[in-house]
Amino acid sequence: MLSAKIEKIAQDIKTMRIRGAGRIARAAAKALKIAAVGSQAKSPAEFSQEMERASKILLETRPTAVSLPNALRYVLLGLKQTHGADLWTMKKAVISRADEFIKNSLEAVKKIGEIGANRISNDDVILTHCNSECALSIIKTAFRQGKNIEVFVTESRPVWQGRLSARELLKEGIPTTMIIDSAVRHFIRDVDKVIVGADSIAANGAVVNKIGTSSIALAAHEARVLFFVATETYKFHPETLVGRLVEIEERDPNELINLKRYPGLKVRNPAFDVTPPEYVDLIVTERGIIPPYAAYAIIQELFEWRPGERVQHTGNKLKPLI
Amino acid sequence: MLSAKIEKIAQDIKTMRIRGAGRIARAAAKALKIAAVGSQAKSPAEFSQEMERASKILLETRPTAVSLPNALRYVLLGLKQTHGADLWTMKKAVISRADEFIKNSLEAVKKIGEIGANRISNDDVILTHCNSECALSIIKTAFRQGKNIEVFVTESRPVWQGRLSARELLKEGIPTTMIIDSAVRHFIRDVDKVIVGADSIAANGAVVNKIGTSSIALAAHEARVLFFVATETYKFHPETLVGRLVEIEERDPNELINLKRYPGLKVRNPAFDVTPPEYVDLIVTERGIIPPYAAYAIIQELFEWRPGERVQHTGNKLKPLI
Amino acid sequence: MLSAKIEKIAQDIKTMRIRGAGRIARAAAKALKIAAVGSQAKSPAEFSQEMERASKILLETRPTAVSLPNALRYVLLGLKQTHGADLWTMKKAVISRADEFIKNSLEAVKKIGEIGANRISNDDVILTHCNSECALSIIKTAFRQGKNIEVFVTESRPVWQGRLSARELLKEGIPTTMIIDSAVRHFIRDVDKVIVGADSIAANGAVVNKIGTSSIALAAHEARVLFFVATETYKFHPETLVGRLVEIEERDPNELINLKRYPGLKVRNPAFDVTPPEYVDLIVTERGIIPPYAAYAIIQELFEWRPGERVQHTGNKLKPLI
Amino acid sequence: MLSAKIEKIAQDIKTMRIRGAGRIARAAAKALKIAAVGSQAKSPAEFSQEMERASKILLETRPTAVSLPNALRYVLLGLKQTHGADLWTMKKAVISRADEFIKNSLEAVKKIGEIGANRISNDDVILTHCNSECALSIIKTAFRQGKNIEVFVTESRPVWQGRLSARELLKEGIPTTMIIDSAVRHFIRDVDKVIVGADSIAANGAVVNKIGTSSIALAAHEARVLFFVATETYKFHPETLVGRLVEIEERDPNELINLKRYPGLKVRNPAFDVTPPEYVDLIVTERGIIPPYAAYAIIQELFEWRPGERVQHTGNKLKPLI
Amino acid sequence: MLSAKIEKIAQDIKTMRIRGAGRIARAAAKALKIAAVGSQAKSPAEFSQEMERASKILLETRPTAVSLPNALRYVLLGLKQTHGADLWTMKKAVISRADEFIKNSLEAVKKIGEIGANRISNDDVILTHCNSECALSIIKTAFRQGKNIEVFVTESRPVWQGRLSARELLKEGIPTTMIIDSAVRHFIRDVDKVIVGADSIAANGAVVNKIGTSSIALAAHEARVLFFVATETYKFHPETLVGRLVEIEERDPNELINLKRYPGLKVRNPAFDVTPPEYVDLIVTERGIIPPYAAYAIIQELFEWRPGERVQHTGNKLKPLI
Amino acid sequence: MLSAKIEKIAQDIKTMRIRGAGRIARAAAKALKIAAVGSQAKSPAEFSQEMERASKILLETRPTAVSLPNALRYVLLGLKQTHGADLWTMKKAVISRADEFIKNSLEAVKKIGEIGANRISNDDVILTHCNSECALSIIKTAFRQGKNIEVFVTESRPVWQGRLSARELLKEGIPTTMIIDSAVRHFIRDVDKVIVGADSIAANGAVVNKIGTSSIALAAHEARVLFFVATETYKFHPETLVGRLVEIEERDPNELINLKRYPGLKVRNPAFDVTPPEYVDLIVTERGIIPPYAAYAIIQELFEWRPGERVQHTGNKLKPLI
Repeated sequence: MLSAKIEKIAQDIKTMRIRGAGRIARAAAKALKIAAVGSQAKSPAEFSQEMERASKILLETRPTAVSLPNALRYVLLGLKQTHGADLWTMKKAVISRADEFIKNSLEAVKKIGEIGANRISNDDVILTHCNSECALSIIKTAFRQGKNIEVFVTESRPVWQGRLSARELLKEGIPTTMIIDSAVRHFIRDVDKVIVGADSIAANGAVVNKIGTSSIALAAHEARVLFFVATETYKFHPETLVGRLVEIEERDPNELINLKRYPGLKVRNPAFDVTPPEYVDLIVTERGIIPPYAAYAIIQELFEWRPGERVQHTGNKLKPLI
Repeated sequence: MLSAKIEKIAQDIKTMRIRGAGRIARAAAKALKIAAVGSQAKSPAEFSQEMERASKILLETRPTAVSLPNALRYVLLGLKQTHGADLWTMKKAVISRADEFIKNSLEAVKKIGEIGANRISNDDVILTHCNSECALSIIKTAFRQGKNIEVFVTESRPVWQGRLSARELLKEGIPTTMIIDSAVRHFIRDVDKVIVGADSIAANGAVVNKIGTSSIALAAHEARVLFFVATETYKFHPETLVGRLVEIEERDPNELINLKRYPGLKVRNPAFDVTPPEYVDLIVTERGIIPPYAAYAIIQELFEWRPGERVQHTGNKLKPLI
Repeated sequence: MLSAKIEKIAQDIKTMRIRGAGRIARAAAKALKIAAVGSQAKSPAEFSQEMERASKILLETRPTAVSLPNALRYVLLGLKQTHGADLWTMKKAVISRADEFIKNSLEAVKKIGEIGANRISNDDVILTHCNSECALSIIKTAFRQGKNIEVFVTESRPVWQGRLSARELLKEGIPTTMIIDSAVRHFIRDVDKVIVGADSIAANGAVVNKIGTSSIALAAHEARVLFFVATETYKFHPETLVGRLVEIEERDPNELINLKRYPGLKVRNPAFDVTPPEYVDLIVTERGIIPPYAAYAIIQELFEWRPGERVQHTGNKLKPLI
Repeated sequence: MLSAKIEKIAQDIKTMRIRGAGRIARAAAKALKIAAVGSQAKSPAEFSQEMERASKILLETRPTAVSLPNALRYVLLGLKQTHGADLWTMKKAVISRADEFIKNSLEAVKKIGEIGANRISNDDVILTHCNSECALSIIKTAFRQGKNIEVFVTESRPVWQGRLSARELLKEGIPTTMIIDSAVRHFIRDVDKVIVGADSIAANGAVVNKIGTSSIALAAHEARVLFFVATETYKFHPETLVGRLVEIEERDPNELINLKRYPGLKVRNPAFDVTPPEYVDLIVTERGIIPPYAAYAIIQELFEWRPGERVQHTGNKLKPLI
Repeated sequence: MLSAKIEKIAQDIKTMRIRGAGRIARAAAKALKIAAVGSQAKSPAEFSQEMERASKILLETRPTAVSLPNALRYVLLGLKQTHGADLWTMKKAVISRADEFIKNSLEAVKKIGEIGANRISNDDVILTHCNSECALSIIKTAFRQGKNIEVFVTESRPVWQGRLSARELLKEGIPTTMIIDSAVRHFIRDVDKVIVGADSIAANGAVVNKIGTSSIALAAHEARVLFFVATETYKFHPETLVGRLVEIEERDPNELINLKRYPGLKVRNPAFDVTPPEYVDLIVTERGIIPPYAAYAIIQELFEWRPGERVQHTGNKLKPLI
Repeated sequence: MLSAKIEKIAQDIKTMRIRGAGRIARAAAKALKIAAVGSQAKSPAEFSQEMERASKILLETRPTAVSLPNALRYVLLGLKQTHGADLWTMKKAVISRADEFIKNSLEAVKKIGEIGANRISNDDVILTHCNSECALSIIKTAFRQGKNIEVFVTESRPVWQGRLSARELLKEGIPTTMIIDSAVRHFIRDVDKVIVGADSIAANGAVVNKIGTSSIALAAHEARVLFFVATETYKFHPETLVGRLVEIEERDPNELINLKRYPGLKVRNPAFDVTPPEYVDLIVTERGIIPPYAAYAIIQELFEWRPGERVQHTGNKLKPLI
């Protein structure tokens, strides 16, 4: 019965009712908290198993976003550190770690907004893609500072997240223009800065984000338009250090087209693509502005690991970071 | 009443019921023929005026495709050459020139298919964008020659012409995969050749085609994938020689989004973009395969002009060309 | 005594009192006319020798600008075609050819202005370098057509020709901003189009122009800013077809610095540099807009030549061109 | 028995005893001459068949070099033009056309040497690849003009043609340094100009030449070192205009390695690669220096063709060209 | 009266009598020392206020060079660490920190000279821009080591700092050639290494230096010529980590031109431009040679900071660094 | 007599009987061990001198590979830490450090294989150059994991190390194709990943490896094919931090050609070239996957150094690393 709530959250992540790497991470932390609060476990061991089961269900929802396992690791590390403690202490640890993660995550979005807004000048024209909390935080912060800006948003096929971005920006009163995804190169010389979010950052600085991002980065690079990525540090992917490939999720073909009306048609529907680091001018994190090649340093600071083993979070280190 | 038929054709071009630069050109030639056949003119002068009026209505339908004025020029040149003749001769001239244009145009598509198919190898994976008669002619010809090929088609937002292409290819039995427009860069290393059509070719070799084409060209260039443009020579734009800019048509915002639900949202909806010649490896025309920089030579062969004057077709020269 | 006037013109070209490839060409034509008018020659042979001597004096003034020998060739061809005629006919031929060259040359500047202005849009920001008649003709024509434009001019070290351009533009009322030569890259994203002149165009489309031009072209290319060259066709260099290198003139070190105050200092002061054709989007000539790679075709149309021989103008061909 | 001599020549071409596109072309012309001289044919028809048979044997020796079919076409056109003539006239036509081709071909090498040498400056360091008659003609001509030059030659694996080039250059007294093929990029900044030959030039300016050429072109382009191709115009490939792909010959694996000692090893041994036109600064032909994109114009000047048909030489046009 | 001396130093910095980021930094440290020595303050609080006032005056002189605030921070940190101490201790702290900064700064220039000289080979041709202490330190050190080198110096418009560099180099006996700023691309293939200084290095590795630097970097990159930046680590800009833009100072238009003689003319006169990190091969610091992307790591090592707060120097960390 | 064994090892390294940076390093460590085991030294001082002599002999064998001095440093550090100890302790220290180095080195190859194999996908086509233990470790590990892969190996002139690689791969049953070095660009679009080893990595991320590597990197970059370098961290070159240039060894001309048969011919035979970091996507080390720009961080972690001094290993730090 408890797992019903978790299943619901897992389902909402899977179907993209909950979407965006940050929101997914917080939902996962919250799900563990719910599981802990409602747990009927009789023993520490049973509780641990419940938490693991819940984690497993959540982990399987979407393969690409590293924010999800990073959030789970963060919360479960709290549990691990209670090793040998009683059930009540264990529950409390999970709950407080989950709360902490959520709070830090929301603060990170705010800080990224502030740091990034420093880079926005008056009269800037900004282009954004998909619907990134961090990217919009920068744009909205700059606008609230009184800067005169305009924004291009792409449709963001196939799930039209650009419409969400447009609504958010219009609600703030920010002049917003929508274009189709493939029109970015046509308008790029009217743009001063591109700002997008990220789902994962690999150890070599490559950025995994919404499909179409790498084309925009290429067009920006071709015209020497600045390309910024805005992301919390918990989207840096520790296991890429030991060679793990970021799996690119392929979603339902019917997001593109009604396949029944096109018998024989194949559809490829990857949700993300990979932008090489040489097309990224800056990554704006809650820890400051870094070049993409500093991803290696960030991952080393955030995670402890030894070659050949699985990567482990260390609470002490992680705590001040997010 | 006659003009009703012409208005209908003009309307169909405007609303894109008739679309594609070749089909538009043939429709325009046919409209003049219809106008000539049904003319009730009492004098040569009256007939000439009718033809001019019909041309004017047709010319105003879509600003970008040069195939339309080139088709009208071709037909009207026949009229001009009857200077001093009687009404019957004039009518006959318009009708036969229109028929000739249509026949040449259809043959050009076929020849382009044959010439271009020579460049397709067994096991090639081809990507196409929008719904180009000439590009599909190459693909279908190669397939009918028994070559084992696969095709990626883009959706081609906002008007989904990629669906038409998909249907045409599936009907031939060609394995076809649909992707969204912004996924082209993600798949480009799986592609051997990109083949697209053109709406206009400028004197310096720049290619005006469906919005999104230049992004595909850029991605192909980045990965050293061959990029072919397939086009009849009547899409070369003579007036670009004297500096005329190709006007990029902007279409109805509602092709993108229901604006009523997004008050305050601006939309930019250009129908075409410009691909610079350095990203085009070859142009396949009915006159053979040329580098884009030969556009200047082609235009000089096809049209006679003097700086400062309007460009004029010359019948003698044009005749053998299409 | 006659030669005194010619020596004066030659001297003025050498010291850059007369400067700019077009003005030099017209001055050379005028010098031959003066020589013909004032000639005291007693025989056709003597007259021919005088003309040759005058040509030689003029040819030695500046090595880079091909407009000078092309102008002399044009005039002398008129002489050559009088072969066997009497003295009076010969004189008349030189005079009328010189007048014709000058008239054609001035008309070419006007036509280039008109053709090029078609490519200028309202609100364009244009950057120009040095003091090119043809480039300024385009800018001024566009402004007189009522287009709202702004212009960046470079200083154009070492001889400050940018100041002349600034004066000309301000006189027209065109908003003009001066920057130092090395600031072009800093401002390039504020620029819509670069327009420069040319001293010579080689058979492969390379552009020889005022030192600094190739850096501007490189910066424009890096930021995908359009780069136009405006030039009369008599600056195309026929002998580059047979491999002749365009000699880059090195001028007096004291144009840079008072060498006496810097004992031991070497100075290199080339007057021109070479812009490779891949950085040139368009060449605007009085014959229309061409890609740089059409230089080969233009030279073939303008000049008749056979490999191994010296290139010769042909009057019949050249006549309608300029 | 006659065919024995032709078989011998064919065999020598096949085994690369006769190698280099120019030498192959002359050998083919000579073979037809031998066939004509020694023919025992009793009738014009029989003679024509003999010539066709000889051509067919020669054509099958090496697929890539277009110089071979172009030479045969040239000679056979002479035969064709005797249509209806007697046997003796036919023989004479073949013989004189063959002689003419050989003479023109040798003169072309000389002219290319002279034109190209104009582009060599004192103290130039030149890099060449393989063993191209035309490239070496330029280098030797420049050296004989007294220019102080040095040459890098590559080994040119797998058949070590670089050793032949080294011997030729040393014989002239030209300072020559050999490097392995893959060391070109390491030394490229010490090089002023790269000069190579060609086996075929396609209609879009792509250059087919000895394997390794395109890597050298890429390295030269990366470091802005000038890259020249030296070639007679009969190596321009007319059928590429109608889309024919230049077939890249794959040669015996044992040129690379003794396969018996490496059971299971596959070997790929293409004799040529394709250099895209954007990496070629100039093509030096006996008709002058052209940009690679003028290939289309050259082919049109040299050959008459109609889309869909096979390309045909026209004697009148071809005659003055080579 | 004390402030008079400080005002004098501030004025000299403002008018560029004192110029170069290193000299400015040392002058600022020295100014604080003078202020401390001559202070008439009666209480610790009063002394602190005096120091702050002095800092403020100095800070306002030139906005771009981060060396100035970094020097002030370094000195004032000494003051801060005396918190609660008596007046005498406070004065002593300021004086000794100022001396220390100046000593470290001069030693850094020497170390950079030594480290950088290791990268200079015999017969190298080096190009430098403006008048950078660190860049010249490398060149002079290499020359004193007996290496045979030659140097190109640019004029460095508008303030002709290249003349200072020329004088310094000639005094050492180093063969020196002056060229105008816009001639760099023309000569770049004769250059082995470019060495310039820096006014600020941003967290992503971007280099702020004398206007024109980025054009030189672009030309060097185009021709694969090595581009080195030589700079003390106190020119790394800590606040760029939190998004602060480096303000580009615009100086007096009359440095360019006598505006009175050009009524209506606008002038843009930025003193610096920004070179993107991808055009920088190496940064030579007193801490060793680093890639530009290590700027982030250097700033983290040198400064302690927390997102959202102002960046603070830490004495302990800074001490061993410079 | 002892030194005879060491001389033998030194000789084998010099003549490339022992080759590959890893094998050389282990051989050097082993040589010191042999020297220690067989030492007849009577005193600690004498023993120290023996070890230094042995090191010196080994150091002089090959100048480029930094693995050799790094291995010696590692072993001798053990000796240094015994400072003041007796002879027996000293010997034991050398022996155990040597054993440790060898063990760590072999384990590193294995770990690199595992980490790198994570990046290999099913159906990947991999290209490798020369004969790198680490690169082959990745390929073999991936194949043993059951992945279906194919490998291209280059000949690797002049010493044919590609044949060794081919043999190793065939022995594993991996489908292997050999091509000549200069054919890499021709086949690059058939390749998914390039994997090579390294002899040295400089502080700015530049990779010194077998001659030809940089050409392959350039061709891979041109076609957007991933380029991986596989290397143990002891090949990172600490002294490049202070500007030391990596010396490129030039080997015997007779590796290329029998010079006696080519009198006058010069030969340049560098064993290595330098690949700039912008062409390297990833470096796979036993410490994980890093971008090339992290070389600076790796060197700082591995070595302790102060500007101006010679770089020193620190045992404590080095120990856990390899």
